[in-house]
Amino acid sequence: MEKTLRELAELSGGELEGDGSINIKGVSGIREAGPGDITFLANPKYLKELHATKAAAVIAAPGVDVGGRAAIRAKNPYFVFAKILTAFSPAKKYPGVVMAGAQIEPGAEIADGVTVFPGAYIRGGARIAGNTVIYPGVFVGEGSVIGSGCILYPNVVVRDKVIIGDRVTIHGGSVIGGDGFGYATEDGRHYKIPQIGGVVIEDDVEIGSNVTIDRGALGDTVIKRGTKIDNLVMIAHNVVVGEDSILVAQVGISGSTELGHHVVLAGQVGLVGHLHIGDGVKVGAQSGVMNDLEPWEAYTGSPALPHREFLKIQAVMRRLPEMRKQLNEITKKLERLEKEKETEKEGE
Amino acid sequence: MEKTLRELAELSGGELEGDGSINIKGVSGIREAGPGDITFLANPKYLKELHATKAAAVIAAPGVDVGGRAAIRAKNPYFVFAKILTAFSPAKKYPGVVMAGAQIEPGAEIADGVTVFPGAYIRGGARIAGNTVIYPGVFVGEGSVIGSGCILYPNVVVRDKVIIGDRVTIHGGSVIGGDGFGYATEDGRHYKIPQIGGVVIEDDVEIGSNVTIDRGALGDTVIKRGTKIDNLVMIAHNVVVGEDSILVAQVGISGSTELGHHVVLAGQVGLVGHLHIGDGVKVGAQSGVMNDLEPWEAYTGSPALPHREFLKIQAVMRRLPEMRKQLNEITKKLERLEKEKETEKEGE
Amino acid sequence: MEKTLRELAELSGGELEGDGSINIKGVSGIREAGPGDITFLANPKYLKELHATKAAAVIAAPGVDVGGRAAIRAKNPYFVFAKILTAFSPAKKYPGVVMAGAQIEPGAEIADGVTVFPGAYIRGGARIAGNTVIYPGVFVGEGSVIGSGCILYPNVVVRDKVIIGDRVTIHGGSVIGGDGFGYATEDGRHYKIPQIGGVVIEDDVEIGSNVTIDRGALGDTVIKRGTKIDNLVMIAHNVVVGEDSILVAQVGISGSTELGHHVVLAGQVGLVGHLHIGDGVKVGAQSGVMNDLEPWEAYTGSPALPHREFLKIQAVMRRLPEMRKQLNEITKKLERLEKEKETEKEGE
Repeated sequence: MEKTLRELAELSGGELEGDGSINIKGVSGIREAGPGDITFLANPKYLKELHATKAAAVIAAPGVDVGGRAAIRAKNPYFVFAKILTAFSPAKKYPGVVMAGAQIEPGAEIADGVTVFPGAYIRGGARIAGNTVIYPGVFVGEGSVIGSGCILYPNVVVRDKVIIGDRVTIHGGSVIGGDGFGYATEDGRHYKIPQIGGVVIEDDVEIGSNVTIDRGALGDTVIKRGTKIDNLVMIAHNVVVGEDSILVAQVGISGSTELGHHVVLAGQVGLVGHLHIGDGVKVGAQSGVMNDLEPWEAYTGSPALPHREFLKIQAVMRRLPEMRKQLNEITKKLERLEKEKETEKEGE
Repeated sequence: MEKTLRELAELSGGELEGDGSINIKGVSGIREAGPGDITFLANPKYLKELHATKAAAVIAAPGVDVGGRAAIRAKNPYFVFAKILTAFSPAKKYPGVVMAGAQIEPGAEIADGVTVFPGAYIRGGARIAGNTVIYPGVFVGEGSVIGSGCILYPNVVVRDKVIIGDRVTIHGGSVIGGDGFGYATEDGRHYKIPQIGGVVIEDDVEIGSNVTIDRGALGDTVIKRGTKIDNLVMIAHNVVVGEDSILVAQVGISGSTELGHHVVLAGQVGLVGHLHIGDGVKVGAQSGVMNDLEPWEAYTGSPALPHREFLKIQAVMRRLPEMRKQLNEITKKLERLEKEKETEKEGE
Repeated sequence: MEKTLRELAELSGGELEGDGSINIKGVSGIREAGPGDITFLANPKYLKELHATKAAAVIAAPGVDVGGRAAIRAKNPYFVFAKILTAFSPAKKYPGVVMAGAQIEPGAEIADGVTVFPGAYIRGGARIAGNTVIYPGVFVGEGSVIGSGCILYPNVVVRDKVIIGDRVTIHGGSVIGGDGFGYATEDGRHYKIPQIGGVVIEDDVEIGSNVTIDRGALGDTVIKRGTKIDNLVMIAHNVVVGEDSILVAQVGISGSTELGHHVVLAGQVGLVGHLHIGDGVKVGAQSGVMNDLEPWEAYTGSPALPHREFLKIQAVMRRLPEMRKQLNEITKKLERLEKEKETEKEGE
């Protein structure tokens, strides 16, 4: 499956630079690329490696020196890279039927074109729309609804009362709709609060491996359209995550916290419950958020502070031992000065 | 399934306020409640929303202004809420048999009334007591024992030599009895220490989704009665967690650490190994515990400090850039003072 | 299965001290050991308990006072303990066949001696070598290769294009080869970058429960020989982990970061992407690594600093409230001194 550089420029919306008739066989990393490949500068750190690459062509932003190679230029080269890589990566083909060995309870509705592998289990009242793929070991609970064009990779658990939109991908081992963590404590014993809400996952959401998204206590936990969730993320009951947000690996969000759209939480960030996180907020890795956050601001630290304030404090932190020394010297000097003063006075 | 407000007051042990003959159809959140619902103030943050709710009645602590609505009052309204919600949430019904497609090895003992779904796998020598439910994809290892009234949700893994009490719930994807992480290093290579201990989970424990509880190296890992464990928690070999403790999501406890009863570890807390954590200890979110902790005290920070000390330090932290400025100004002033002194002396 | 103390000394390479004819029935912890057991001092904290143990013999380093008991002495007693415990822990026996109820797609190659349990699913083009054990609920994707002597515990997911060496153990629920977390953002929408690379797991690697190791975007994610990975660890696309490294529970490593050999990351450590971590680096629990790290150095903190610097800063941190007080006192004294000076001058 070869394509000319011109074809790639056209399908990706990038600008052709150099010989458009070059045949490109595939996309490769800077170091690994062979003479039939197109490559891409993923990170400025690797700029020096660009000059040594064997690739026939390069995807790059305007102005980046590609050493005279043929190129496809774009303001957002990463987006062009995504389109070209997609063109070289045809979607897997699935049989589009319920295969022997899949367990479908009576009353489940499986649309034409859905693939259900052996070893999957679909409970009664569940509905699955066209072209969705259900891998082995997947469980879909009573009355849950899964849209079209979804992929549920092996051993995903979708409990009951979960509504999943179209084109949602869930990677292996993730659990959607487990009970929220809610107890009432009386005389030192913890009594379970029934968790009777559901989960709503809107269109175009992608969920990584071994993620957990709990059902609501009352009402629903909601992940809105286009949001992407990395591996081992924990989303508690009644959390709402806005559209097009990015939750990096091992993030934890406590109950009833609401995130706006285009929020970015870096890896291992934790949020306490009942917060409002504004649209477009960015939170740095490992931060701990204890308070509502203002839209379109960046925060870092545990507890989280505005990012600039965090940086200023960090800069001083490294000077703490030196500051302590300085402080003690000053204290001594001052004592000496006072003593001298005393002596002078006595001398007068 | 309607109940009068009077019936709800009686079954929950709360005090009726207003018209006891009102018919209640269900329990709902403050915002979502309709005119046939009873609602509950989960968090003081939502007090203002209480006045706008459409609910027919409210569960509230004595003294909370419910705007003239009918109410059930209780010192512990959350406990009353739990009981009322439970009354409206009948337990799911299960067939109480081993279903076709479940894999039971010879020598496994499955009591009458146990439900085993297709796709579950029970090894020889395992014993499962009455009314327990084993969902699809669950694995129970050789010689493991599961009590009565338990629910093991889809894809739970219980390895061999695991003893589980009565009324234990384990949510999807959790792994109980994986090998502990133990190696002896010789000449730079890591040799596996066989992990030959087991796991004991006592009565009324609840374990979230994708949790991991490792078996002991020698001896057992133990989770005592009534303890509740949230999603993605990691409990290492030979840890002992006391009764009625609460481990919030993504907590990690290293090998051989022992927790007392009624310990609360907030989200993402980490504990190093071989510690003793006293009864009733509370540890704040994201804290890192490096030392034994005194009973009934609160700790926060990484490394963890007594909570009050942590707060004092945090307050000063935010003033660090200002302190550094202040320190430098003083240093300069003092130099000037000393110089003047010098000049004076020379002048004498 | 009894062995004499002499036999145990010989098979473990330790030095016999006392009566070599004692019969030993098993290995036990210091507290639990009975009169037929050999025990081991795992942590100096338990030294006082050694004197109360009922064990017949002790594994100990030279010079440790074992109270006159028979002993096996070794410079690396933990390694001797591992060998003796292995001698008392015979490997489990497996049937060595594909059992009825296992799902093997046409075109998969399963060598003689491989055990595949019912409920496992092997896709076409996968190859599995001799003596490997595939537990129920395991999924092996198209074209993936698994070496000999491996154990894949229940519900492990191995997606396509994953190459696993010999003697690799993967505990329950881990997902190898899920898609990396890569998106190109255009006009506020996130477009998936196809993740077309694979995963390579070399010989003698052990992977804990519910771990996630993502496939490369282009090129492979690589875990090199002898590395041990604890539960709930997250390894992102194109990460390379060197030989004989130790990744403790809940560690997260971001995309394209490369670790040398013999790296130790303690629990809950997070690394940002595109870093180089030198050979033999040790990173303390909960640290957050933002920069390349020098070989054979220790680092701690979030952001991580050289361990000694971290300790010095921590020591001062606890004195911050006191420093602030000291600083304010000095400021006042200085003001007083300046005022007096002013008054003196005016008096002149």
